Amino acid sequence: MKVSALAESVGARVLGNGTVEVSGISSIRSASAGDLVFVEDERNLRLALESAASAAIAGSFAMKKTYSKPLLISKHPRLTFALAAKLLRSKSTRQSGIHSSAVVHSSARLAKSVTVEARVVIGEDVEIGAGSLLGAGCVIGQGVRLGGDCVLYPNVTIYPGTRLGDRVIVHAGAVLGSDGFGYVRDDATGSYEKFPQIGKLEIEDDVEIGANSTIDRGALDTTRIGRGTKIDNLVHIGHNCQIGEDVVIAAQTGLSGSITIENDVVLGGQVGIGEHARIEEGVMLGGQGGVLPNKVLRGKGVAFWGTPARPVREYLKQLGVLERLAKKK
Amino acid sequence: MKVSALAESVGARVLGNGTVEVSGISSIRSASAGDLVFVEDERNLRLALESAASAAIAGSFAMKKTYSKPLLISKHPRLTFALAAKLLRSKSTRQSGIHSSAVVHSSARLAKSVTVEARVVIGEDVEIGAGSLLGAGCVIGQGVRLGGDCVLYPNVTIYPGTRLGDRVIVHAGAVLGSDGFGYVRDDATGSYEKFPQIGKLEIEDDVEIGANSTIDRGALDTTRIGRGTKIDNLVHIGHNCQIGEDVVIAAQTGLSGSITIENDVVLGGQVGIGEHARIEEGVMLGGQGGVLPNKVLRGKGVAFWGTPARPVREYLKQLGVLERLAKKK
Amino acid sequence: MKVSALAESVGARVLGNGTVEVSGISSIRSASAGDLVFVEDERNLRLALESAASAAIAGSFAMKKTYSKPLLISKHPRLTFALAAKLLRSKSTRQSGIHSSAVVHSSARLAKSVTVEARVVIGEDVEIGAGSLLGAGCVIGQGVRLGGDCVLYPNVTIYPGTRLGDRVIVHAGAVLGSDGFGYVRDDATGSYEKFPQIGKLEIEDDVEIGANSTIDRGALDTTRIGRGTKIDNLVHIGHNCQIGEDVVIAAQTGLSGSITIENDVVLGGQVGIGEHARIEEGVMLGGQGGVLPNKVLRGKGVAFWGTPARPVREYLKQLGVLERLAKKK
Repeated sequence: MKVSALAESVGARVLGNGTVEVSGISSIRSASAGDLVFVEDERNLRLALESAASAAIAGSFAMKKTYSKPLLISKHPRLTFALAAKLLRSKSTRQSGIHSSAVVHSSARLAKSVTVEARVVIGEDVEIGAGSLLGAGCVIGQGVRLGGDCVLYPNVTIYPGTRLGDRVIVHAGAVLGSDGFGYVRDDATGSYEKFPQIGKLEIEDDVEIGANSTIDRGALDTTRIGRGTKIDNLVHIGHNCQIGEDVVIAAQTGLSGSITIENDVVLGGQVGIGEHARIEEGVMLGGQGGVLPNKVLRGKGVAFWGTPARPVREYLKQLGVLERLAKKK
Repeated sequence: MKVSALAESVGARVLGNGTVEVSGISSIRSASAGDLVFVEDERNLRLALESAASAAIAGSFAMKKTYSKPLLISKHPRLTFALAAKLLRSKSTRQSGIHSSAVVHSSARLAKSVTVEARVVIGEDVEIGAGSLLGAGCVIGQGVRLGGDCVLYPNVTIYPGTRLGDRVIVHAGAVLGSDGFGYVRDDATGSYEKFPQIGKLEIEDDVEIGANSTIDRGALDTTRIGRGTKIDNLVHIGHNCQIGEDVVIAAQTGLSGSITIENDVVLGGQVGIGEHARIEEGVMLGGQGGVLPNKVLRGKGVAFWGTPARPVREYLKQLGVLERLAKKK
Repeated sequence: MKVSALAESVGARVLGNGTVEVSGISSIRSASAGDLVFVEDERNLRLALESAASAAIAGSFAMKKTYSKPLLISKHPRLTFALAAKLLRSKSTRQSGIHSSAVVHSSARLAKSVTVEARVVIGEDVEIGAGSLLGAGCVIGQGVRLGGDCVLYPNVTIYPGTRLGDRVIVHAGAVLGSDGFGYVRDDATGSYEKFPQIGKLEIEDDVEIGANSTIDRGALDTTRIGRGTKIDNLVHIGHNCQIGEDVVIAAQTGLSGSITIENDVVLGGQVGIGEHARIEEGVMLGGQGGVLPNKVLRGKGVAFWGTPARPVREYLKQLGVLERLAKKK
């Protein structure tokens, strides 16, 4: 692909020879001829020019002069690089179709361009939209609805009745729609009776879910993951949680039941949140932070940290006080 | 099912027309005709009466008058609802039998009413009790014993020699009987030699294990999970742990090796416990709490929190002191 | 195997009758005739002599007299026991070969002595070295390279292009080479664009990886796990991490992106480390400890604890000060 054509597609400005061809992306360190790289400062620009890369995306700081290689100038080089990568990544040559070892229920409705790899099991009354790919060993329960252009990596399990929108990516080993953790203690016997877990799980468009993460169905109602939300590996989301749009949840974070996470929240890794808590729009919660049941965290762009979570400035002050006191002793 | 018959089965008292029929359960919010709901206060009773539900389970507070719908009066509405749900949930219409794509070793002994879904692999000398269901993609190692009426959701792995009692539920992706994490450092070379992990894992009746949880076999002896214990998603239990009966372990909690958890303990989410610690009967440990190796926590109904775990009142007092000190500065 | 022959193989000295035969290993508690046990003190030596075990490995403390059973005297009884166990464990009688239900791409190159269990899926251009075992349900992506004598337990997923050295052990459900968690926010729309995750994952010789752990491929470059490193269950390692040799990582620990862990580091369970941090050679970090992004921890044999991680002595002092202050109030 010519640099000029690529620049046009991603909304960047060409500096230098737009007829140079690029065919892939790379880091500066491992670039070879034909690769496109990106830089955000002068130092890396220098390294990019010395590398084998054929072209680079750079911020407007680079506009002053011309260089030995064509540049694509963009306000946000990293974003432009991500968009360019999407265009350049060799369209997977996979052929759609259903592998002979897959077990597909006769009542399942698969769009024509769906790819079903080896050993996939698809249950009764499942519906799968055009362009979706089911990796080897996935198990899709009865009545599941999958939108178009979804990618399920191998060995994913989806419990019956779960619904996924379009362009949802689910990494290997993730479990969607499992029973919530709800019991009622029988005081007469001391043992726990299972509370019914018959609700649903709905995952909206453009969500990505990391490897071996688990998201429980609602107990009686619905667990919901909003459009564009990104969930890392080994995350747990309990029954009845309502997760907003464009939320980011880093690895190993756990949400117990009936939690509300509003739009644009960012949760660090290993965060833990108690049932019925509400994290309001745009809050940021640092790694390993903990929120008590029923608590509300509020404030766009406000960062919280610690257990129980406090505004990060308060928390740092407290840590400082403690450190000074201990040094005096 | 008639309300009067259901009430009799679950030990509730009918208030109103016992001939009304119910066929399912639901939350108040999503109830439709034929549904049974439950309420624990006046406000929800009002909502239930306004809903499309056909009947409601209610506490004795509701006994004073009669209503537009039949009520089932119970001291513990939530428990009664759980029991009613068990009765009402449509007996799954699945037929027992072994799917043609399953790979079952000729020496395995399966009771007649066992269900084996697609792509299950069952090893040598495995024994499976009546009424058990093995979900698609499960792998059952050599010599495993599974009791009756167990449910294994898809893609569960059980290592050789593991034993499960009756009515054990294992959610998708869980791994039972994996090697413990034990090594001996060779000081001469600095590298780690694997300590043998040849013990067993025994799981007693009525245990439930969450999605993608992992429970290791003993190193030389046995890891044991006691009757009625409930384990959430992504929990880790290390080798040689002895878990009592009716223990509750919330998501992402981790127990390292040789820990004793006595009966009726409740562990919150993301709790971490060091090797050889003992958590005595009836202790409650709050989310993200940490217990040092060899420590003992004691006291029925006593709540602990923090790392290292302290009685929760002490911990809250310490947090309060720190907060006040920081504010003064 | 005769005690004398075994002693010679593991470099121990025989005390007593070297012609006694042992055929297995055991704990003292569950020993039966033919078993070898190990003891590190007088009390356990007494118990071993009273047990049904046929012989025991003991420290040099036991050299003073002779006993009713032959002893193997070693400076490091636990290590000697581990080595003896390796020799004694019945060479698995499995026959190498490819199960008829496995799906192996015609371009894959498998050494003759490889064992492929039921329902394994092996992609295009995969290479597997001699003596390796792939457990039932494993999915091996295109272009993966596996060394010799590797053991993959069931239902492991390996993403395309990942490379494993020799004698690597991967427990059930682990996911190797999944996409890293990287996005670029598009400020115009507020939504997240996926940053390319096209790097590699390389795992060196003698690494062991626990059940349901996840290790991400590099974004543009390579994630690397060094020789001899041992990783417990449910651990998360993010993209671009560089893990040294003989590192020990306990269960549920999480490393975000681009972290360096140098040789001989020991990380306790549930540790969390922020991106670009560096943990230098020989550092020990206690369970649930947290390290901020870009931080460096330094000091061979120095123990850190808490969040943010401090030298353990400092941290304990701080905890003590706080406790005393709260008691005064």
